[in-house]
Amino acid sequence: MSAPNRATLWGRVLVDELSKGGLEAVCISPGSRSTPLTVAFAEHEGIDVYSHLDERSAAFFALGRARRTGEPTALVCTSGTAAANFHPAVMEADRARVPLLVLTADRPHELRDSGANQTIDQVKLYGDAVRWYAELPDPEADERKVRSLRTTAARALAETTGVEPGPAHLNCPFRKPLEPLEVPDADPDSFAETLAGRGRDGAFVETAAGERTLANDQYRPLVRALEDAGRPLIVAGPADPADLTELEPAAVVAVAERVGAPILADPLSGLRFGPHLGDDPGDGPVYGGYDAYVDELPEPDVVVRVGASPTSKPLRHALRDADALQFLLDPAGGWREATFTATDLFAAAPGDVFEGLRERLEAEAGANSTGGETEAEWLAAFDDAERRHWEIRDEALEADTLESEPFEGAILADVFTHAPDPATVFVSNSMPIRDADRFARPRAADLTVLANRGASGIDGIASTALGAGSATDEPLVLVTGDLAFFHDSNGLLAVDRCGVDATIVLLDNDGGGIFHKLPIEGFEPPFTDQFKTPHGLEFESLAEFHNLEFERVAPADFADAYRDSLERAGTQVLAVDFDSEASHRRRDALEERVRDGIRDGGE
Amino acid sequence: MSAPNRATLWGRVLVDELSKGGLEAVCISPGSRSTPLTVAFAEHEGIDVYSHLDERSAAFFALGRARRTGEPTALVCTSGTAAANFHPAVMEADRARVPLLVLTADRPHELRDSGANQTIDQVKLYGDAVRWYAELPDPEADERKVRSLRTTAARALAETTGVEPGPAHLNCPFRKPLEPLEVPDADPDSFAETLAGRGRDGAFVETAAGERTLANDQYRPLVRALEDAGRPLIVAGPADPADLTELEPAAVVAVAERVGAPILADPLSGLRFGPHLGDDPGDGPVYGGYDAYVDELPEPDVVVRVGASPTSKPLRHALRDADALQFLLDPAGGWREATFTATDLFAAAPGDVFEGLRERLEAEAGANSTGGETEAEWLAAFDDAERRHWEIRDEALEADTLESEPFEGAILADVFTHAPDPATVFVSNSMPIRDADRFARPRAADLTVLANRGASGIDGIASTALGAGSATDEPLVLVTGDLAFFHDSNGLLAVDRCGVDATIVLLDNDGGGIFHKLPIEGFEPPFTDQFKTPHGLEFESLAEFHNLEFERVAPADFADAYRDSLERAGTQVLAVDFDSEASHRRRDALEERVRDGIRDGGE
Repeated sequence: MSAPNRATLWGRVLVDELSKGGLEAVCISPGSRSTPLTVAFAEHEGIDVYSHLDERSAAFFALGRARRTGEPTALVCTSGTAAANFHPAVMEADRARVPLLVLTADRPHELRDSGANQTIDQVKLYGDAVRWYAELPDPEADERKVRSLRTTAARALAETTGVEPGPAHLNCPFRKPLEPLEVPDADPDSFAETLAGRGRDGAFVETAAGERTLANDQYRPLVRALEDAGRPLIVAGPADPADLTELEPAAVVAVAERVGAPILADPLSGLRFGPHLGDDPGDGPVYGGYDAYVDELPEPDVVVRVGASPTSKPLRHALRDADALQFLLDPAGGWREATFTATDLFAAAPGDVFEGLRERLEAEAGANSTGGETEAEWLAAFDDAERRHWEIRDEALEADTLESEPFEGAILADVFTHAPDPATVFVSNSMPIRDADRFARPRAADLTVLANRGASGIDGIASTALGAGSATDEPLVLVTGDLAFFHDSNGLLAVDRCGVDATIVLLDNDGGGIFHKLPIEGFEPPFTDQFKTPHGLEFESLAEFHNLEFERVAPADFADAYRDSLERAGTQVLAVDFDSEASHRRRDALEERVRDGIRDGGE
Repeated sequence: MSAPNRATLWGRVLVDELSKGGLEAVCISPGSRSTPLTVAFAEHEGIDVYSHLDERSAAFFALGRARRTGEPTALVCTSGTAAANFHPAVMEADRARVPLLVLTADRPHELRDSGANQTIDQVKLYGDAVRWYAELPDPEADERKVRSLRTTAARALAETTGVEPGPAHLNCPFRKPLEPLEVPDADPDSFAETLAGRGRDGAFVETAAGERTLANDQYRPLVRALEDAGRPLIVAGPADPADLTELEPAAVVAVAERVGAPILADPLSGLRFGPHLGDDPGDGPVYGGYDAYVDELPEPDVVVRVGASPTSKPLRHALRDADALQFLLDPAGGWREATFTATDLFAAAPGDVFEGLRERLEAEAGANSTGGETEAEWLAAFDDAERRHWEIRDEALEADTLESEPFEGAILADVFTHAPDPATVFVSNSMPIRDADRFARPRAADLTVLANRGASGIDGIASTALGAGSATDEPLVLVTGDLAFFHDSNGLLAVDRCGVDATIVLLDNDGGGIFHKLPIEGFEPPFTDQFKTPHGLEFESLAEFHNLEFERVAPADFADAYRDSLERAGTQVLAVDFDSEASHRRRDALEERVRDGIRDGGE
């Protein structure tokens, strides 16, 4: 490895080290100060480079890719406000535990607060939202400094995938020349070996990262509680990327079946869809319709929770109100339980804990043939409610009904029912993820369902979806509302620039439909002007601007148009118009019918 | 003042106090947690409310308005990543000293890092970029707390316009109900007087903010230096909003004429345009063409500098290389001089210093009739160079020449020559501001020329311009390149939602033309893919998406189309296509001709 000057050398060593450490993709926005990084990434053959014009969208694209793969994606920008545009995605990466390596170019140290152009204070720019922050020294062709550079790069990458994965930030000052121009005094031949790394595959410093596993006696309270439980429940909330790869659904199912516990599986849990499921809903052990009925069923007495806080508010409230032992399994020991009802926190990898539980429960069952204390009607109540829920949903989805009473949940139902196997489905925040939670029926298909539930913003949605799609050959579906679609309109450029195809389902209710669910609906003004904010935008011209096919589809025709789009190449926007207020009323009415059905069934 | 519950009370008192303190405008993005603030702003009659769907654009709009008026604009967003979307504009406000009051709604304290939805760490979110950060306590109908709320609100507003104006951040936690629903125990009638404020006009705590003025003996070194100078120079860099209102051009001109100093006036200085100018360039005392010739003229021996670092790189380098006493006048005592050549920092309001200088120089001149030591050829060299510069520019602008050799600078020349009097002209970063610096000829018209030169990003450009336009009835012109236009495409929504009309001049060279000025141009790849980044976007459909008129104009026809647009209502996008490489060569050739002319003239 040689270089014509210090900055170029610095860039090349840094990028080489990141590649050796396993980095496979980077998102780059154009800029001058970042030239040494950009040039080094562009000339490195082992790293895919995605070019983005808007740093905010770039960061969400990188987030999406890292979320889909569980592997870090890097980000590069120039100095100044460019770096601040990364901030929303960095926050989401923090809360959602997505590995992201942020490389911000900076001007040399002495120019800070000097009045120099495009110079801001980038030191610890993202505060506590990053797992690690470091600032590189001035580039120098010096053996010790190059060793420190390789070590720092290896560490930054490792920090993104530590016990709690997340973003890391390297601030990288560079001085001119930034381009690969020859400068005579920069010859580093005297330490060619350090320059080239270790002369082996892998990082300059390899990381062997231990996993947190429970000792035998630490399992005991959980095993005992489950054995003694009359109404045990497993709740799987939204999964982090690490959970998705680490948590083996078969182990969870085995434990659930052994103790007679329903698994309430968030659409983002990695458990609602997959070959571990039976063909008919209500056959257990995975339930998906709980949002509509959980508050009508008996309380659990023992709850095992994995993942983040569930999307379903009725479920969160049911857990809050239950008089139960609640075990929270979290690989990073995060206290992610905002109703403050957890009684026991297990800081260990959930996949490992479920494996351990399975073994121990089997061993105990062998020694003691009673097989648990589960109340007979406990599982039956869930089976019955789940069956009623999907029956009533299916009636609402019939073509005649949909034509006279269109509602947004029907589209989410179709999206999941007709998604190809396998597929990646990205669901926007606000109403789409809530409707996915309610109306996406468990399926044996291999669906990877993703959303930005770390901070639950409606920013960066298209970019995150396209980033996720960039990492897989599976069909990609994005379901978004009109406000989120508008918010990240710039993200659509990645369809063309990054070569990602998608079926984009646009639920267009002309504003913030979710506000109809809130008491503010009753206060007019300011409800329409400041909350619902109808905008009247015609997204067809936006699609044209980005060279996307655009089709306006009636709710009753959606399923056909959707299947058709999934069979075609290119990116189609399927826009379905709704009146959000009417849709909201129909959603409420459906829930009421499920509740009535359960009450009648119980009488 | 009464309220149905604590959150509503809190919102109403806060907004009432801000209004009493002088706040006149707020930009609001829809969200639920911010409901108490949004409702209170919407129901307050004394504050203009601008509704925005994208928080990033909202923040730049607020920045633009505050930049144009010099008065604080408030921002409201919900909790979560929304607040991070404000970050780029907060950084620009910090560096550019623009008063901005950021109100971020937050979830209650106990939910932080609890796994609760849409909850991030918003404490000190913008780091050192704000002049003041405070967190409000939980709302309570308690007299002492309401007094603290009024005091905190009054202070936050005052902090935005302190010695160094800039952003302030109030983080505002709210708990449910967020809407104006009746809650029985919230009756605050017992302290109606505190609730209503002081029963007087104005803030709860009025601020009498003293100005930094120099004592007589502090003037002495500057007065002596100017009297003794052989080649005195006044350099006016980009002005802060406070400078624009405080610095009286007549005082600067009087000092310049008294001591025989040319004033090199950045287009953003507030001095290049205005009635203080004579009708012919080169008649002094204000010079605008220096970028092309300053490095060909003699060095100054005394320099007085106001404003931020000049846009012109040749000027910055000439100042760096001069063997001169350099006096830096800065109202906030900021050390904004990135070449480290300032010898004396005067922490005092420049307008006040120039008034003081005028008086003292007149008094000294009365006592001592020599009238300064200025070298005879010093001013003549500037006059001559300035005249040649505009002659050569005018030749290049002739219709025939433009048709065969179009170049981007010609558009900037036209924009300023044909701008109505008065007008507000907002110029994007990257090439437009540099071409404005070179080709905008000093005029006696009242042009307010603005740009985001604090951090010099290409983000938020359209929003900042429209925000500036929202504060004035003058015609608004925005000059932007295609990358900046794309970056803030969402900002165009403000044309419709906020009712601001503009003439948008879009210099479309399909990518980052500025990179042709840098050595990276010689490295292909990655020059085109990662730096120039041509995108092929057809902005006509983007204009259609936002209901803007769109016209593609040839460079030679631009002046007519521009004047026509300025006479029409509505917002027109005038797109002028350029080949950035050819345009760059022509710009270089023009500069070379000016240099040659000066050298020939000097021989």
